[in-house]
Amino acid sequence: MTRHDNRAAGELRPVHIENNYLMHPEGSVLITVGNTKVICTATVEERVPSFLRGQGKGWITAEYAMLPRATAQRTQRESSRGKVNGRTMEIQRLIGRALRAVVDLEALGEKTVWIDCDVIQADGGTRTASITGAFVAMTQAIAKLGTEKPFAKFPVVDYLAATSVGIVEGTGPVLDLNYVEDVDAAVDMNIVMTGEGRFVELQGTGEEATFSREELNELLGLGEAGIAQLIDIQKEALGELAALVGSREEA
Amino acid sequence: MTRHDNRAAGELRPVHIENNYLMHPEGSVLITVGNTKVICTATVEERVPSFLRGQGKGWITAEYAMLPRATAQRTQRESSRGKVNGRTMEIQRLIGRALRAVVDLEALGEKTVWIDCDVIQADGGTRTASITGAFVAMTQAIAKLGTEKPFAKFPVVDYLAATSVGIVEGTGPVLDLNYVEDVDAAVDMNIVMTGEGRFVELQGTGEEATFSREELNELLGLGEAGIAQLIDIQKEALGELAALVGSREEA
Amino acid sequence: MTRHDNRAAGELRPVHIENNYLMHPEGSVLITVGNTKVICTATVEERVPSFLRGQGKGWITAEYAMLPRATAQRTQRESSRGKVNGRTMEIQRLIGRALRAVVDLEALGEKTVWIDCDVIQADGGTRTASITGAFVAMTQAIAKLGTEKPFAKFPVVDYLAATSVGIVEGTGPVLDLNYVEDVDAAVDMNIVMTGEGRFVELQGTGEEATFSREELNELLGLGEAGIAQLIDIQKEALGELAALVGSREEA
Amino acid sequence: MTRHDNRAAGELRPVHIENNYLMHPEGSVLITVGNTKVICTATVEERVPSFLRGQGKGWITAEYAMLPRATAQRTQRESSRGKVNGRTMEIQRLIGRALRAVVDLEALGEKTVWIDCDVIQADGGTRTASITGAFVAMTQAIAKLGTEKPFAKFPVVDYLAATSVGIVEGTGPVLDLNYVEDVDAAVDMNIVMTGEGRFVELQGTGEEATFSREELNELLGLGEAGIAQLIDIQKEALGELAALVGSREEA
Amino acid sequence: MTRHDNRAAGELRPVHIENNYLMHPEGSVLITVGNTKVICTATVEERVPSFLRGQGKGWITAEYAMLPRATAQRTQRESSRGKVNGRTMEIQRLIGRALRAVVDLEALGEKTVWIDCDVIQADGGTRTASITGAFVAMTQAIAKLGTEKPFAKFPVVDYLAATSVGIVEGTGPVLDLNYVEDVDAAVDMNIVMTGEGRFVELQGTGEEATFSREELNELLGLGEAGIAQLIDIQKEALGELAALVGSREEA
Amino acid sequence: MTRHDNRAAGELRPVHIENNYLMHPEGSVLITVGNTKVICTATVEERVPSFLRGQGKGWITAEYAMLPRATAQRTQRESSRGKVNGRTMEIQRLIGRALRAVVDLEALGEKTVWIDCDVIQADGGTRTASITGAFVAMTQAIAKLGTEKPFAKFPVVDYLAATSVGIVEGTGPVLDLNYVEDVDAAVDMNIVMTGEGRFVELQGTGEEATFSREELNELLGLGEAGIAQLIDIQKEALGELAALVGSREEA
Repeated sequence: MTRHDNRAAGELRPVHIENNYLMHPEGSVLITVGNTKVICTATVEERVPSFLRGQGKGWITAEYAMLPRATAQRTQRESSRGKVNGRTMEIQRLIGRALRAVVDLEALGEKTVWIDCDVIQADGGTRTASITGAFVAMTQAIAKLGTEKPFAKFPVVDYLAATSVGIVEGTGPVLDLNYVEDVDAAVDMNIVMTGEGRFVELQGTGEEATFSREELNELLGLGEAGIAQLIDIQKEALGELAALVGSREEA
Repeated sequence: MTRHDNRAAGELRPVHIENNYLMHPEGSVLITVGNTKVICTATVEERVPSFLRGQGKGWITAEYAMLPRATAQRTQRESSRGKVNGRTMEIQRLIGRALRAVVDLEALGEKTVWIDCDVIQADGGTRTASITGAFVAMTQAIAKLGTEKPFAKFPVVDYLAATSVGIVEGTGPVLDLNYVEDVDAAVDMNIVMTGEGRFVELQGTGEEATFSREELNELLGLGEAGIAQLIDIQKEALGELAALVGSREEA
Repeated sequence: MTRHDNRAAGELRPVHIENNYLMHPEGSVLITVGNTKVICTATVEERVPSFLRGQGKGWITAEYAMLPRATAQRTQRESSRGKVNGRTMEIQRLIGRALRAVVDLEALGEKTVWIDCDVIQADGGTRTASITGAFVAMTQAIAKLGTEKPFAKFPVVDYLAATSVGIVEGTGPVLDLNYVEDVDAAVDMNIVMTGEGRFVELQGTGEEATFSREELNELLGLGEAGIAQLIDIQKEALGELAALVGSREEA
Repeated sequence: MTRHDNRAAGELRPVHIENNYLMHPEGSVLITVGNTKVICTATVEERVPSFLRGQGKGWITAEYAMLPRATAQRTQRESSRGKVNGRTMEIQRLIGRALRAVVDLEALGEKTVWIDCDVIQADGGTRTASITGAFVAMTQAIAKLGTEKPFAKFPVVDYLAATSVGIVEGTGPVLDLNYVEDVDAAVDMNIVMTGEGRFVELQGTGEEATFSREELNELLGLGEAGIAQLIDIQKEALGELAALVGSREEA
Repeated sequence: MTRHDNRAAGELRPVHIENNYLMHPEGSVLITVGNTKVICTATVEERVPSFLRGQGKGWITAEYAMLPRATAQRTQRESSRGKVNGRTMEIQRLIGRALRAVVDLEALGEKTVWIDCDVIQADGGTRTASITGAFVAMTQAIAKLGTEKPFAKFPVVDYLAATSVGIVEGTGPVLDLNYVEDVDAAVDMNIVMTGEGRFVELQGTGEEATFSREELNELLGLGEAGIAQLIDIQKEALGELAALVGSREEA
Repeated sequence: MTRHDNRAAGELRPVHIENNYLMHPEGSVLITVGNTKVICTATVEERVPSFLRGQGKGWITAEYAMLPRATAQRTQRESSRGKVNGRTMEIQRLIGRALRAVVDLEALGEKTVWIDCDVIQADGGTRTASITGAFVAMTQAIAKLGTEKPFAKFPVVDYLAATSVGIVEGTGPVLDLNYVEDVDAAVDMNIVMTGEGRFVELQGTGEEATFSREELNELLGLGEAGIAQLIDIQKEALGELAALVGSREEA
């Protein structure tokens, strides 16, 4: 009944966030969650999509991809196939939506923050690692904007992190599934929460399986505890920028 | 605090499922949920995708689309744009995954059931109406297969229906959001459940908003009650086929 | 020598046009010709394609599609294949060109009327049913424009309907071919005519066959009679709007 | 009332067909009709499309394109735009269908003849010039097949040529419209006929105009006379191969 | 050790450039190099790509394609495949870059010259024939511009031609490889040079082979001599326009 | 006249190759050349492209991409644009061709080695860094194959590395251009050479400039010296595998 890597049911894999990983982007991290590695970058563009123009509001949007050999088998590039597949679209919509929930888009002003999450090594949980890492890259990029022209209110109003929980055949409910567990999971749930412990996204799926209200509650408990730990790691990675989140510049 | 169409918080819109709506498909319905109308068809193909070949298992897959003027503004056809957008992909993946949760794919054998959901009029809740209608079309098509060659065990093992719940600005938690409510919703959740009351999918999203564990529980309660009613309507629509779901042919 | 559904050579299938079929479009009908069913909608857009800008003229354009199970075998969606096939393009170009022949584009002004014809059930004659139905939807939409700001001259200057004629193996020249006849036809001709009995389009094709001038004349005679009946059905469907066609507002 | 290039109403432009124009294809011509120049090639492939496999029948298919500067303004390449437009599709479907009407596909056997028509200079009538030229290239290619293994019956059973007729503003009904006339035409009709004077295709279109039965008859008369002349030019171009068309090898 | 067509190692195939080959383009040639035939056209557009706008500089860009039966086997059209392949892209980038090296883009002013090279018959060396022919078509088009509004300095500042050299199995280093030699070449090099004998492009490739510095020198010698001859042929083709290249209008 | 980063004309930037950079691929490196960083992986597939099937020969093919923020400005993903651009195609064709020059494809047997080069940070010279790194990843992957089933002859027959040389405005001929120098270069040349000092590829380009034979010789000298150093670094990175290159297993 123990997990194949000997973790406790509620134990995260080792997580590390390396800041300022690349020279060009306004914000960039390499996030490592066990063997999963994702480069997350944040780019600030001084304009917004057409549907927002002239409203004084900003926008956060995300793209997600995997290197062909991030996976055990080589995956064909989406550029070669000429189209982005459904899984990729789902993930990039999720990342953007999640981040927008903790950003005051009026405070940001008419700017777009582009998030790019590129998985260089995959071992389960790439979408949740992407969100957790992207939050740090985005906060750096927005903080950099603030050094050029201070915000009355810092646009990032709360922390945000994500993890997965699931019910694994023969193991039961566990936190932070790696690839082997993910394959064996009857139920898989991604949870995105804020620093205040409120839900932003909840996506629970039984693939050829179902789950009860009690099981749901158990999974939510594991997730809440895991996300609190991830937010501590984000704060450490942000260092002195950590205090900006949710802050208000005094005049 | 009342809903703009005077429904109670836990009240579904009028739902109707018209059976055998088209002459060609093995299963077909027109489902009407308030002003939302979706044609759902089920097609049986005598082969499976390559990743399943030779395993004795079947497959259920779904496609979803809207007519250009299903919506208040004309939407460009995806065939004209040359690609399927992210929202469409998310929805068709959801429909397929949901239906597979109540089908015994071994009992089905090496066949694919193609589900097509085409929205001819949209007023909120098109993806959940699609799932609810598609379940009936799929069951008809599989029952038709059984009349040609009886199944030892009927492959559809439980009922399945879907609805939306959400927290609407100024109204609070409500069941079965129409388009106007959907636009005003701070939290939007799609719930797919079985006849036994187990969850198959749970997708809760705060668009630029968040929700607490208590609010989640309230929403789940509304959803459970609504789905039970939808399943009654499905049974009525299926008529004498209703008894097949979950049944086992006696030798 | 009789037709397989016992119709006389010059007999149309039962035709019905249901008006205001959908809630959102400015004009919409469900046209039924035997077992062929097409939803036709008309959308008014307050601008014209770039090649017409600034000339004070309007435009009529059309798109055509079939639901995957409009046909006996499931047809792959054009959005999934990522491109529109040649037959579809031919049909939508035909529909647009035909309707433009009876619209005074200067009287319409700088507006585009988008016609969408979506076949939900196909049994032969989908393109001609689309034209006949689209004429009614277009006229409704333009009449609605006129209620907001009356036209000096109503832009629809004559009626327009379409049907097919053909030479069927073992039956000879017939009117309004259904699918079975279409498959057996050596010669297939689509005719689009106005209320005044003038030709707008004539597309006669011998698929691996040819036809003489005498046969052509016989086919044209059948078509003319059929179109006159279709125009009567359009007038009935339009009700009091019928009088607008070809009219001129008095100052 | 005279034509702008002084031709009589029923006069073709100068037509020339240069045989064996290219070294690689099995059949190739450069057809010149006034200033319109089209390279037509025929390629024999030893297999048929999947829908014909195993039926002992052959197939004829066609592709059509224009060089970017075949026209007065440069046209973007379809390869750069990533898709073939509707006009191109219509034309290539027409060319293939027309040629198939005079080929005995059983006599051809399980082979595909690919026709490629590439317009290097356009001055109206490119689709009809393509058909007239392609007939010669196809006949050459099939004759070449016959020299390797004689046919019991030569698969090309009759001649086939095409021209346009139309009603030009201020000139009236004329034969073989050049570009300037085409632009001014109220009615434009393409006619494809056999050596025996039977119709294969008839495509008459009033662009924002209509035509009567009498006008139709006048146009058909002009077309018949023009096509008879074109077939004489084809026979001359084919030289000794001309006698093969419609022939039967004696045992 | 002799070449299969009996040419000397340093001997070009017969080259001919036919001027004003087409009626519509501002510049057009048919260049024949042995059996290789390419139509090159030049089109002047009164604007530049967005990255150059407002800088007072012009641009030269090129597209390249082959007719399907330019080759021994039919090649599928890039428009049908829906994308341009890598080889085509390489060639069109090369043509544009090469021509820009001898054009003073400031002297040209904010105009784009579009070069189209369409191979109608291929027997090796199509890309170098394209460059050599395109130079003449471009010079014609720019000269035509100058007749409308004289240039202070003629924008084409030097001649430019291209050829191939290579090391062929069993023959050694040779100039101007035809298709058979190209297939047998261990090393293949394309050289683009100016009238002054300076290099513009040098692309040497060992396909599954390598070459030494000495071999490189020998190949460069052959190429220089060949290009000098090609430039003489260009001058002859340009006739009285030849003197414009590198000239300066006197005030 | 000194370089902006104070390097001597013939001095490489610091180069480092990190071996076994990723857990999944058969071969993988992170190559760092100054600020340019590329992940190169090698994947072995047990089949060859169709044009090689049944010939007993293997194949090497490459793909190349940049993360969106590898560059100073964000570059749109090729998967989002739906096609691979010309520069990318040129580079991936170059990488594959270069590596094939030092691999005995018969000795490799019917296998494909897929090379993926993903630039995570770009500062000039990404294509040459890709080749240099890819050689190491490929050699690792092939060595791994050899441990499973020893080769009679090790398929990698010589070393291979690449660098750039160029003539920079105000600096003259230099080795290993970084991005700033690349922008200022009048002439840019990529050189790929073997361990034995033979050329595999030579691609010299004057962008709006030209170069003489003397300048060419000077550039080749710089390149040769640089590549010798790069090959030493490859040997060090390969460690004990270094001896396999060019070796023959003794029976």
